[in-house]
Amino acid sequence: MSKYSALFTPMVATGEPALYNKILAGMKPGAIHLSGGFPDPDYFPREEIKELTNYVMDNLADTALQYGSFMGYPTLVERIVEIGNSKNQNVKPENIMVVSGSTESFALMCKVFVNPGDYVIIEEPSYSGALGSFKAHGANLIPVPLDDDGVIPEKVEEALAAKKAEGIQVKFMYILSNYHNPAGVSLSLERRKALVEIAKKYNVIIFEDDAYIEFRYEGEELPTLRALDDAGMVVYTTTFSKTFAPGVRLAWIIAEAEVIKALGQAKGATSLFSSSLNQAIAAEFSKRGYLQRHVDRSVQLYKGRRDAMLAALEKYMPEGVVWTKPKGGYFLWLTAPVDGVEMLKGAVEAGVSYRPGPAFYVDDTKGYNQARLCFTMINEERITEGIRRFADVIKGLM
Amino acid sequence: MSKYSALFTPMVATGEPALYNKILAGMKPGAIHLSGGFPDPDYFPREEIKELTNYVMDNLADTALQYGSFMGYPTLVERIVEIGNSKNQNVKPENIMVVSGSTESFALMCKVFVNPGDYVIIEEPSYSGALGSFKAHGANLIPVPLDDDGVIPEKVEEALAAKKAEGIQVKFMYILSNYHNPAGVSLSLERRKALVEIAKKYNVIIFEDDAYIEFRYEGEELPTLRALDDAGMVVYTTTFSKTFAPGVRLAWIIAEAEVIKALGQAKGATSLFSSSLNQAIAAEFSKRGYLQRHVDRSVQLYKGRRDAMLAALEKYMPEGVVWTKPKGGYFLWLTAPVDGVEMLKGAVEAGVSYRPGPAFYVDDTKGYNQARLCFTMINEERITEGIRRFADVIKGLM
Repeated sequence: MSKYSALFTPMVATGEPALYNKILAGMKPGAIHLSGGFPDPDYFPREEIKELTNYVMDNLADTALQYGSFMGYPTLVERIVEIGNSKNQNVKPENIMVVSGSTESFALMCKVFVNPGDYVIIEEPSYSGALGSFKAHGANLIPVPLDDDGVIPEKVEEALAAKKAEGIQVKFMYILSNYHNPAGVSLSLERRKALVEIAKKYNVIIFEDDAYIEFRYEGEELPTLRALDDAGMVVYTTTFSKTFAPGVRLAWIIAEAEVIKALGQAKGATSLFSSSLNQAIAAEFSKRGYLQRHVDRSVQLYKGRRDAMLAALEKYMPEGVVWTKPKGGYFLWLTAPVDGVEMLKGAVEAGVSYRPGPAFYVDDTKGYNQARLCFTMINEERITEGIRRFADVIKGLM
Repeated sequence: MSKYSALFTPMVATGEPALYNKILAGMKPGAIHLSGGFPDPDYFPREEIKELTNYVMDNLADTALQYGSFMGYPTLVERIVEIGNSKNQNVKPENIMVVSGSTESFALMCKVFVNPGDYVIIEEPSYSGALGSFKAHGANLIPVPLDDDGVIPEKVEEALAAKKAEGIQVKFMYILSNYHNPAGVSLSLERRKALVEIAKKYNVIIFEDDAYIEFRYEGEELPTLRALDDAGMVVYTTTFSKTFAPGVRLAWIIAEAEVIKALGQAKGATSLFSSSLNQAIAAEFSKRGYLQRHVDRSVQLYKGRRDAMLAALEKYMPEGVVWTKPKGGYFLWLTAPVDGVEMLKGAVEAGVSYRPGPAFYVDDTKGYNQARLCFTMINEERITEGIRRFADVIKGLM
């Protein structure tokens, strides 16, 4: 008890950290990190940012250094209109809001749609950052399982029907359509169409998080849920964190104008606007073709690393361990038939990190024998060595 | 009614815009703007940003473009420690959180301290952006009057005592200590000390917003409430928006480590971290002495503009109009004995803008015969012409 105890809201968690975080705190320096969701810093577009900052300062500083609109810096909004329409997302400027990273999308969606106690459907597993944000905003999370083709629409409809029978309006379903974080799977076209129909039937928003769409290593690009939606049920978000750099802290939302207006009210009360300087630079990065070039390079690089991780898993993992085979993105998802707490302790001991399964579940005592493995941040040699170490840990427990 | 009506939270305002915003929408292009709270873009530090971006890209890109900690970019945190301690604010790194503008401070403070329906004391008038954010987070605002020496401590204590008698714990009082926005006044030293004692007595946080502290045109710098606080009751926020540039979107909070930790949880759920790129640049801007140089230049420039506005008011305003004489900051506050709605319509007609009083009141039908006038964004000739036009409007109504 401190003098603040009588003042803090319930969102201030004063309890113990999760067991997996306590275990991970023992990780030694020099460990091989397969845990983050980070791009490789060796390939950051340094020279482009120097060039573009010079250009922006010489030509656009009056607006790029000044206060801006919650909607976004006009030239960046133009670029996002183009990107969206290249994916048939039916975008006009009034359908766009620039935000300071996807996490801000999560927070604004809650402000606009979630009263404390309201219900939100999530996939299980799902992105830990989104779950944390939804929980902090008081949402009740309803988990729905996914398989190799993404979330299972029949299970989504069951959950919605059950809540409807109780007289409860579910507010939105949070769906990672492409190269799922953490599961590494993608939603099939048939399921995409089914989800949009379900959303219309139950008047529930689909909150589509498409952070990894550009990182496609094989297969065709499927239409986003936003592109399939003819009824304004999809709120779409994606980010520059992976296609440009996390440090510029930029993402965007595409939705119907009425929803953008509501999100804008929330943004006015929480962050006013996103850095005009970074937006002006991002607009030029896109306009000059550097964005596409950077994506192309990253795809080539990360595809090789995905292949290396899959090969190492094949080579080193014992029978009984299973993992997803992502066609894109940053991650794959591994399940081992061992004691998960011991697996994590062993990995820390062996100097290899992964993001433990519980982070991706509503109930964070679940999923201990699962691991999200990131293949983007380090090179193929290190990836291979990391998987070798991790496999040794698992073998030792089997 | 739209399909979203059943989904939106109550914070989504679907009503009419305020009367003053409807009137202001008629402003013609080419008007003289005394309404904003903007620095003059002609003096933005363009060359410094080019130089520093080159340096950061060549030396720090690995971290400056990567994901960062919610606490802040380490070299910027170091600089803020120094700035804070130069003002006797008793700062260690664990007392700091970097945020994306003061508006984010408002939102995070609400997340950590305000359950919907909780009570917060505000000065009246007070900064419109803060009032809007507090309201959007469900706070009940208790207005307390101020005079030429700032907020009146006896009135603060009365308000706290009244709520205590009802068994209600007020969560914080929001105080603009220096060069008040919009009132242009500063809190006297005696009142600062009295407020800290009251905060201790009632176990209520003082949320001190000190955005304008560096813009001192006369008089001595008084200790901040944070510097006077020996009991951890003050959460202090100030911003780089005025001392560097609004477009970099950076501000900071200083508070006890336990409060920073709680604010960090809220930040994790709402924006994760602030742009590492902009933070790395801001750190160098401060380290190389450019921050102080830019502040010195701005002070010189804006002092002349304040003098010009005061001289023009003296010359043109009719008897019966009163205004505050700010010793620093961006604004002064004018009250005219006329019909405020007609005054605003007349100003729009005459091509001069001001920020109407109602924006700064809890009840936005109040204060129509008051105006916040900003003297920083345009030059002395334009300021003089703007005041001349505004005075003509008022004369015509008297």
